[in-house]
Amino acid sequence: LVLCSFLQMGWGDLGAFGEPSKETPNLDQMASEGMLFMDFYTANPLCSPSRAALLTGRLPVRNGFYTTNGHARNAYTPQDIVGGIPDSELLLPELLKKAGYVNKIIGKWHLGHRPQFHPLKHGFDEWFGSPNCHFGPYDNKAVPNIPVYRDWEMIGRYYEDFKIDLKTGEANLTQIYLQEALDFISRQQASQQPFFLYWAIDATHAPVYASKHFLGSSQRGLYGDAVREIDDSIGKILKHLQKLGISENTFVFFTSDNGAALISAPKQGGSNGRFLCGKQTTFEGGMREPAIAWWPGHIPAGGVSHQLGNVMDLFTTSLSLAGLQPPSDRQIDGIDLLPAILQGKLIDRPIFYYRGNEMMAVRVGLYKAHYWTWSNSWEEYSKGIDFCPGQNVSGVTTHTQEEHTTLPLLFHLGRDPGEKYPLSFASEEYQGVMERISAVVQQHKETMVPGVPQLNVCDKAVMNWSPPGCEKLGKCLQPPESNPKKCFWPH
Amino acid sequence: LVLCSFLQMGWGDLGAFGEPSKETPNLDQMASEGMLFMDFYTANPLCSPSRAALLTGRLPVRNGFYTTNGHARNAYTPQDIVGGIPDSELLLPELLKKAGYVNKIIGKWHLGHRPQFHPLKHGFDEWFGSPNCHFGPYDNKAVPNIPVYRDWEMIGRYYEDFKIDLKTGEANLTQIYLQEALDFISRQQASQQPFFLYWAIDATHAPVYASKHFLGSSQRGLYGDAVREIDDSIGKILKHLQKLGISENTFVFFTSDNGAALISAPKQGGSNGRFLCGKQTTFEGGMREPAIAWWPGHIPAGGVSHQLGNVMDLFTTSLSLAGLQPPSDRQIDGIDLLPAILQGKLIDRPIFYYRGNEMMAVRVGLYKAHYWTWSNSWEEYSKGIDFCPGQNVSGVTTHTQEEHTTLPLLFHLGRDPGEKYPLSFASEEYQGVMERISAVVQQHKETMVPGVPQLNVCDKAVMNWSPPGCEKLGKCLQPPESNPKKCFWPH
Repeated sequence: LVLCSFLQMGWGDLGAFGEPSKETPNLDQMASEGMLFMDFYTANPLCSPSRAALLTGRLPVRNGFYTTNGHARNAYTPQDIVGGIPDSELLLPELLKKAGYVNKIIGKWHLGHRPQFHPLKHGFDEWFGSPNCHFGPYDNKAVPNIPVYRDWEMIGRYYEDFKIDLKTGEANLTQIYLQEALDFISRQQASQQPFFLYWAIDATHAPVYASKHFLGSSQRGLYGDAVREIDDSIGKILKHLQKLGISENTFVFFTSDNGAALISAPKQGGSNGRFLCGKQTTFEGGMREPAIAWWPGHIPAGGVSHQLGNVMDLFTTSLSLAGLQPPSDRQIDGIDLLPAILQGKLIDRPIFYYRGNEMMAVRVGLYKAHYWTWSNSWEEYSKGIDFCPGQNVSGVTTHTQEEHTTLPLLFHLGRDPGEKYPLSFASEEYQGVMERISAVVQQHKETMVPGVPQLNVCDKAVMNWSPPGCEKLGKCLQPPESNPKKCFWPH
Repeated sequence: LVLCSFLQMGWGDLGAFGEPSKETPNLDQMASEGMLFMDFYTANPLCSPSRAALLTGRLPVRNGFYTTNGHARNAYTPQDIVGGIPDSELLLPELLKKAGYVNKIIGKWHLGHRPQFHPLKHGFDEWFGSPNCHFGPYDNKAVPNIPVYRDWEMIGRYYEDFKIDLKTGEANLTQIYLQEALDFISRQQASQQPFFLYWAIDATHAPVYASKHFLGSSQRGLYGDAVREIDDSIGKILKHLQKLGISENTFVFFTSDNGAALISAPKQGGSNGRFLCGKQTTFEGGMREPAIAWWPGHIPAGGVSHQLGNVMDLFTTSLSLAGLQPPSDRQIDGIDLLPAILQGKLIDRPIFYYRGNEMMAVRVGLYKAHYWTWSNSWEEYSKGIDFCPGQNVSGVTTHTQEEHTTLPLLFHLGRDPGEKYPLSFASEEYQGVMERISAVVQQHKETMVPGVPQLNVCDKAVMNWSPPGCEKLGKCLQPPESNPKKCFWPH
């Protein structure tokens, strides 16, 4: 089992999904040998909650990856976050262990960096990567650089030991992450043990980077160079599986954790194709993701599925592949996609679009109803922070939080995937569809039990000052006094 | 030789180009067996000039398909147009005749409907279709319905004899046009004569239509139904060529005459993917087109070309395929694409974006410079006429005609195909690129000899009142008194 989850690569970044530069031959080939999902979603328009949802099969509002510090605010796990993945949550690797799987995460964890949240305490057997985003370089006085871990201990820090040239964008990190993946796969094949590899690299997150060989290789600038390197790496992983003779025993899924960060585009951010807005928003550009399933000999080549899917489904689907049942003592939002993948079935299920603990929108069939709309505040917008650059849909991409709960804005995503033409409230179509959607929403809200919010409290003292292993490296830093505060989440 | 040119199907309407419903399996297969052009353009954001350019290999400003009634105005051939394709222009079928080709046009001609402009007077041997757009139904007092011709004579009129149910969108016309194509191909194969088929159907132009079998077959509504029927028809034409054993002797090219008409979207109009605006504009959404070349045994399967192409190239390329040279007594804008198609070469050439006789923009390499910007007037916009719905790029999608000739707006279409992030005037990149582009523009303007504008004069007396053949059908109508006027072109 290989899950490749990328940082904010958008729906429109792959040739197979219409990127006009067509620079992803390996991913396009993966699609032509496997199955493309055209209606696949993340569980949140931001990275940490999306990854928590993938690994728990549950909406962030259930697993605690949300904030109540403001209404409908996005939150994640910066260095000063106090919370993380609760022990009470059951993660995919914990469950796969029962079926004898060896589990490895390569890349960005992002489910909390304090000791109790360490991935090896939550089911992973191996880790190579970082707990947070690779912002920086910091000065190590106010903010330390992000550590890179091998298993339990840090082996260095971003920028200090793992170089990224912010001027040229050169960094060798994707190559290192690729080599880690190939080595892990070889070892597991040699030991004949089933494995789960979660390849969660970060080259396409600003500040984006690529290795020397890929710099300047794209028509799309540095972001495109990073995409080309990832594309090349995926090609090498798939070929490695084929060469080892285990491709027919290995289910590989490629997707992204949120839509392209248009705020970083075009030099540091990707594309959401024709979808509205980007990361941070509950419009399609924030949550519709590229998605490809690959499993030669099992998945019919060249398939296209219109099954509504979600990263949470990878939890349930992976368990199903391992012959395991999902936990029955809690609500699981992910569904088993195997009937859709192997038999072309279409399972009727809604998609919920959350921001914090507010259900902003819901998709049922081809229709999407917005109960709340917001891009970001006028205050932020006036400072140049724009999640919808060049896209302004009156009354839709609002800069105040607009409530539409009594009369939701309704779109038909088949004829209007860009969410530009709201249906007339007076139309028969509106009336009939909203009746159906209202029932789905009512049922969802009645049975919703939110988890304890993990993303409310921040404290500079909990930053990555002295991760385990820092003594050996002489890289321990002195934390400031503890001073827990409400985290500030502007959008 | 088969050229399939469709009415305002947009770049984003094909699965192979990223349409999220992926409902064009035949065109996608055509692409996978042939070559996709990612950077292919029409010569004008409107139908008549674009078709005149395709058939003459020359910019509309040279062949006369433009107006000088207002600055930078789009113009076409409505029923009351007095002009049409001048006799002095040499059309592709006229030239192909010299190599023994039999030429047929099926569908919309749109190069003038008065007797001297008849396609059979300009090189075609056969015609089945209409001279103008299928607007209507009219009352036949102020405006007659559009006739449908077989060769020299009309055989009926749209709506009267060739039904389109405006309520359900049902019409059998695409099926009729398909049958005409299959029959023509069979006849040519039987007689062993080389042929040129120009299949220029109109189902995707508002009011869009589809036959019963395709109604409701799409996730995209009626427009999608029409696309599915066209896709199915293309599949049948290609299979027919294969069945007859002539696919390796037949070059087939698929493209569109202008970008999707977003003003008709989402129910009656298509998608331009992530490109800016639509038909009528010189932004990418108005002029970048889907394009596929297919020629089994010659074109490598699954190719993707970044050659800058233009519908005018189909003129020169077709001549090249027939072993003919383009005329040497006039400026030809189209280039021979065979080196790009067969040997993967990249030919450096600019793309010019015109509106009327004004060069609005130019593309050189990956850069596009706007010398003038305009979507439409505030007056029209305030009435709800919007060529860029849900897209508003400040200072770019302007509602006044903005001149930028001294400091053009520059975009990098590789990292910013949506034309949302103009380059800083102060940047080195801007300075260096504009130096190169300025030279190209200067050379273009210095050698430009505009043709006599054909789209300036309108007269209700010249409408399709009594086309040849109307007597036999009892369908002759009485024209009003001649009263030639300047045509009014609002945008």
